[in-house]
Amino acid sequence: MSKFTLAAVAGASAAVGAATTAAFFGTRKQPEPTQTVTTTATTVGGPSKTTPPLPAPVPVGRVDPKALAAAAPVDPSGLFQYGFPGPVSDLRAVSSLTSSYNRTTRNPNWVAEHITPASVLMREGDRRHSVFEEDMTIPDKFRAKLKDYFRSGYDRGHQVPAADCKWSQEAMNATFALSNMCPQVGEGFNRDYWAHFEDFCRRLTTFYPSVRIVTGPLYLPKKEADGKWKVSYEVIGSPPNVAVPTHFYKIIYAEDGKAGGNVSLGAFVLPNDKISNDKPLKDFEVPVEAVERASGLEFASLLPPARRRQLCKEVSCSIIVKEYADRQKAFAKPGLPSPK
Amino acid sequence: MSKFTLAAVAGASAAVGAATTAAFFGTRKQPEPTQTVTTTATTVGGPSKTTPPLPAPVPVGRVDPKALAAAAPVDPSGLFQYGFPGPVSDLRAVSSLTSSYNRTTRNPNWVAEHITPASVLMREGDRRHSVFEEDMTIPDKFRAKLKDYFRSGYDRGHQVPAADCKWSQEAMNATFALSNMCPQVGEGFNRDYWAHFEDFCRRLTTFYPSVRIVTGPLYLPKKEADGKWKVSYEVIGSPPNVAVPTHFYKIIYAEDGKAGGNVSLGAFVLPNDKISNDKPLKDFEVPVEAVERASGLEFASLLPPARRRQLCKEVSCSIIVKEYADRQKAFAKPGLPSPK
Repeated sequence: MSKFTLAAVAGASAAVGAATTAAFFGTRKQPEPTQTVTTTATTVGGPSKTTPPLPAPVPVGRVDPKALAAAAPVDPSGLFQYGFPGPVSDLRAVSSLTSSYNRTTRNPNWVAEHITPASVLMREGDRRHSVFEEDMTIPDKFRAKLKDYFRSGYDRGHQVPAADCKWSQEAMNATFALSNMCPQVGEGFNRDYWAHFEDFCRRLTTFYPSVRIVTGPLYLPKKEADGKWKVSYEVIGSPPNVAVPTHFYKIIYAEDGKAGGNVSLGAFVLPNDKISNDKPLKDFEVPVEAVERASGLEFASLLPPARRRQLCKEVSCSIIVKEYADRQKAFAKPGLPSPK
Repeated sequence: MSKFTLAAVAGASAAVGAATTAAFFGTRKQPEPTQTVTTTATTVGGPSKTTPPLPAPVPVGRVDPKALAAAAPVDPSGLFQYGFPGPVSDLRAVSSLTSSYNRTTRNPNWVAEHITPASVLMREGDRRHSVFEEDMTIPDKFRAKLKDYFRSGYDRGHQVPAADCKWSQEAMNATFALSNMCPQVGEGFNRDYWAHFEDFCRRLTTFYPSVRIVTGPLYLPKKEADGKWKVSYEVIGSPPNVAVPTHFYKIIYAEDGKAGGNVSLGAFVLPNDKISNDKPLKDFEVPVEAVERASGLEFASLLPPARRRQLCKEVSCSIIVKEYADRQKAFAKPGLPSPK
């Protein structure tokens, strides 16, 4: 059935002018009857040995509707006897992060972390001892794979940065699961501007006793020449499996450390592309609600307005550029992550 | 802040060569402090009356890490004190359908229905008495709006068809909520081939005492000239709000009516485009797992393989073409929905 189906999908796709979906659908097989059947548009096989012509499902008056109508006629939720379709978020709560996974894009919906002045100064973990790995808690057919990233041209971009979790080797290792990754442009973004932005977040712990950060991908529309808005993004892997986000967001919660105290919020959206180091970080600041509308998520529904402050009015929201090679050299050394 | 932010986003987007996201982010405002502040890249205001230069968050040695490190250093799930980010599925269970909504695409994830020989023969509902309406159970910022569809060029395409719910006016009315809709190509699809496909599903009730159908949108990648796979779809509304699916799926469960009995499964994926009436329905048949991989959902996880049968081996999976005008004429009349 697999071959037949792929051909059928290719045929279906031809109707929209695209060799669309054959590869995407992959090659896995459904449970099959034991009998092998040659299946074409005109020859169909039956589950039994002989194959009489199949009746078309036209009304034949076998059912007395009045007899059945007395009862409640339908039960749509009865579907659940076959399982709940989802979506399932594959929530993952480990020492260094809490995340929600998207089984359609094979990227996280969001990954939450927490850093403190103490946690960012500890030096128990070293990324040279960590390895990228698939998240085996996610069912195979929905899992992002190492091979999807291989030769894709994109970095395996941490959402919670490894460098935020040096307080424990185990905590750092946990950030290397692919459920904490998205495909990111490497040069000019993941290894540069985005890294400077992550460094900015860490530096906030010199000002606030507790900082929470939620990071995740976005797939944003842009206006085409014809005036229509279109979302367009690559999907890497063969068959295609993992979506390449067009943008990434961070929601920053800088807490004053008092119970029920003030929370200084900052929200940023950066394009998944080379960004010049002279671009001000504040250019990427957006209202929290903008990220909510774009992501379908809510980030502060239980935070009363009276407790909210605006991060970039309390600290200077700007990056400090440190060259990639320098950062790499400095990585394994004890010392402060921030340059002078 | 709103004006500033939109400009900032437009600036950010320029970095990826697109006037991307300003409109998408909308014009809603965040809670603001009472003081108005002129915010530019170099001038920032503080929450207090005077605005001394803001310190950059560089390490100043105010924190004694050893004192803090004794405790568990971080608590990522502490984020939930501000609310759970989601995704939330906005499950809707009414008499005629059970659905799950996607707050990112503003379309359903899936809509489940149940039809029987009795339910499809009843004639208590008439679509002339139903009106399209927004689903007010969904928060405003995530809701599909009537104005999004207005002059979009797309039909408000029922996922559970109105014609499957003639057994009660109330049941039919419930199918007119926009949470049961997706933007569909009208001519050649929603009003033609897709309608014939829906008719095929109803005719299954002449063969099976109970039929369940799950319907929903897909956003499938296609292979570009450069060999890369890309997902690309329009977003309608101003600002852009509702995604236009590239494809639609139906999973059909034809039940034999016995407790723990056999279930004949059929899965179909059709492009959201004109389809010629002479295209065989079987060309669109796919394995259930293909839809699962593409949608991120699971449709039969609790259905044992021993109970599964293949629908298109038991009945002829083919449409019967009836012209749109004829169907419209016949719509309000009592009688069988299927032509001879």
